[in-house]
Amino acid sequence: MPVNDIAILTTGDELLSGEISDSNTKTIAASLAAHGYRLRCSLAVPDQEKEIVAALEYLIGHVQFIIITGGLGSTGDDRTARAAARALGQRLVVNEDALEMVHDWFAQRNLKMEPSNERQALLPQWAQPLPNRIGTAPGFRLQHCGCDLFFLPGVPVEMAAMFKASVLPVLQRQVPDATPFLQRTFKLFGLSEPKIDRMIPYRQLPEGVEVAFALEYPLVLVKLKATGKGAEFFLDQAEALLLQELNDFLLARNEETVEENVAKLLTRAGLTLSLAESCTGGLLSALLTSQAGASAFLERSGVTYADSAKMAWLGVPQLILQQHGAVSEKCARAMASGLRQSTGTDLSLAITGIAGPDGGTDEKPVGTVFLALASEAGVHVKRYTFSGDRNQVQKMSATMALAWLQRFALQQLEA
Amino acid sequence: MPVNDIAILTTGDELLSGEISDSNTKTIAASLAAHGYRLRCSLAVPDQEKEIVAALEYLIGHVQFIIITGGLGSTGDDRTARAAARALGQRLVVNEDALEMVHDWFAQRNLKMEPSNERQALLPQWAQPLPNRIGTAPGFRLQHCGCDLFFLPGVPVEMAAMFKASVLPVLQRQVPDATPFLQRTFKLFGLSEPKIDRMIPYRQLPEGVEVAFALEYPLVLVKLKATGKGAEFFLDQAEALLLQELNDFLLARNEETVEENVAKLLTRAGLTLSLAESCTGGLLSALLTSQAGASAFLERSGVTYADSAKMAWLGVPQLILQQHGAVSEKCARAMASGLRQSTGTDLSLAITGIAGPDGGTDEKPVGTVFLALASEAGVHVKRYTFSGDRNQVQKMSATMALAWLQRFALQQLEA
Repeated sequence: MPVNDIAILTTGDELLSGEISDSNTKTIAASLAAHGYRLRCSLAVPDQEKEIVAALEYLIGHVQFIIITGGLGSTGDDRTARAAARALGQRLVVNEDALEMVHDWFAQRNLKMEPSNERQALLPQWAQPLPNRIGTAPGFRLQHCGCDLFFLPGVPVEMAAMFKASVLPVLQRQVPDATPFLQRTFKLFGLSEPKIDRMIPYRQLPEGVEVAFALEYPLVLVKLKATGKGAEFFLDQAEALLLQELNDFLLARNEETVEENVAKLLTRAGLTLSLAESCTGGLLSALLTSQAGASAFLERSGVTYADSAKMAWLGVPQLILQQHGAVSEKCARAMASGLRQSTGTDLSLAITGIAGPDGGTDEKPVGTVFLALASEAGVHVKRYTFSGDRNQVQKMSATMALAWLQRFALQQLEA
Repeated sequence: MPVNDIAILTTGDELLSGEISDSNTKTIAASLAAHGYRLRCSLAVPDQEKEIVAALEYLIGHVQFIIITGGLGSTGDDRTARAAARALGQRLVVNEDALEMVHDWFAQRNLKMEPSNERQALLPQWAQPLPNRIGTAPGFRLQHCGCDLFFLPGVPVEMAAMFKASVLPVLQRQVPDATPFLQRTFKLFGLSEPKIDRMIPYRQLPEGVEVAFALEYPLVLVKLKATGKGAEFFLDQAEALLLQELNDFLLARNEETVEENVAKLLTRAGLTLSLAESCTGGLLSALLTSQAGASAFLERSGVTYADSAKMAWLGVPQLILQQHGAVSEKCARAMASGLRQSTGTDLSLAITGIAGPDGGTDEKPVGTVFLALASEAGVHVKRYTFSGDRNQVQKMSATMALAWLQRFALQQLEA
């Protein structure tokens, strides 16, 4: 059984005024679940000393571990350390170790420290500071009446890194017998959730394997979960059954993004690529180049919005633009083949379409998108009609292009 | 002052296993804020009777209004009504009015009711059922020891509709003098949070205007908040004082994104634009073209990763690449001026740098980025050294470019 004597306390006015939703709780909860722990409860309170004190007092009597996020910054609305001192009956003092951490952070970056940053070293007297490698605010740990409290900053990347470095190891030392909750995620593209649901062979799945769905537009995530003895084995079985039906729609697994997977496959296959984007406006390039090492395969990418750009950079004949328009099978084909001719890359992929909200016609409504892929084997072109708003059409188009690239790279690798 | 004697209790295992983040709290919190109420706290617990009872007991002594969501369905893991009965010392009985609501729901849709749906009418004995026009589960209201409890289903659309129909009107009747809470957000770029904090003229701000900070990398958001009589007037005063100090760093306000603002200004100024991106890999183009109507100003954008692309598309002389490298002041200048020469756009902006993680040298470490802007007035080039990982360097570079474009467009509009 998962250990569930853990609570999260998040502090921040913006959580209670509806301005942002709380992503830190989700991050911590998911990481805990993956390691066999489960949250007993999560509590959010405003940046007010009184409220933080009340929440801490409630939780200290209730659970063994408390993870507190937020309110460790250097400005006036950062009141967590003060509240912790009050709730635990400690004085607030300058913690020399924490002060050194703050000094070091600035020194390592050749930056000047502001006097207000020194406030971040003002901690409850028995606090043990926790290093923050990303931001300026150290976290800290306190032990009180059998309860272990971890205070982390609210900035999500800092919080996540410090949780992993300073909180998880303590949990694992103190509660070593937690049986992890195993989960495998399959990111599918091209089928709706109800269609996927009907294709899953529920009756054949091993007992104890749960199936869950999530949406990450335009992907549908199917999760297989199991815990306890033999979980790996049962998940292997379930995965094989699932992929028998759905492998053609699989774009990535688990934490991997689709663009990560495509970048990896292109690199592994040794393929070079050039892109010509119109309606996606650089989204596909940005996704692929967000990956380190993208220069290994991407030679260039042209966001050719205007006709003049399609002619100059891609060699699209003016006649095609005049007779068929920029959103046409012929133009997509000319974009991809013209680009490949001038760059000499293994692959040239072109996207042209109408992302909206304006520009649609009866014949070519908003969402009409042509994809073309030029390779040694010739040019493959296809017309799609995507639904949704501008950003959804852009995302669908870019994801479809990634699916094309993935398929090509896989075929090369298997050949 | 906003009334803040309200708490939310959400129930559901999936909230505490990290599978979904809690959107109901955000929905309720935003609606409360818009009507002048403020949440005191929000608490999430699993679908376990014991945990729900403990949370209710804690909250009943703490606030005047509690909104509980989730656990009213017809399956075995719906335990909220039972927990409410136990926490309030009431028996669980079939509520005739609730039963009729469930019957009616199925009758109106010509659907057959499952026996399990009758469970949804099993409520604490003094519960007053609340109609659900969308789903099958009625909500209910209980009053206990001066506390008013509203139980709503967890399905977001049902919850939102019932909150509006059955909870808000009660709050408005019982606390009629709540005055809406006004807020203005200023999105600043180029200064750290502590630096901004020191530049805010706190002492001159009208009393009752609160200042809050938030980070939206790489922006720092400063929020001015006020409520009550004269709030608009005081916010006007505070805004004027704030912008006296910080106007040069303002990139957008309130809900507007920076790219939205820049797209609007370029369009209004009638400026045409072409881009040459290297280390940002299309991010800047993707941001600008995520806006409807981007084709009004953006002529083209080249993601010129390889040297061959910089030469062919931007006319960068090979000699510059050989002598100074692609990441150099000279190359950035050549990229922008070459692009402008061939496109004839009013502005051509070039970005070249080292986003990392590899490719840095002692002389040009990771984070070294050159920006160049070519216009009729000539070419302006600047070298930056940004810190952070690959995606942070890319974001900083793209945002800096947006800041340059905004400044240029504003100068044109003011001239």
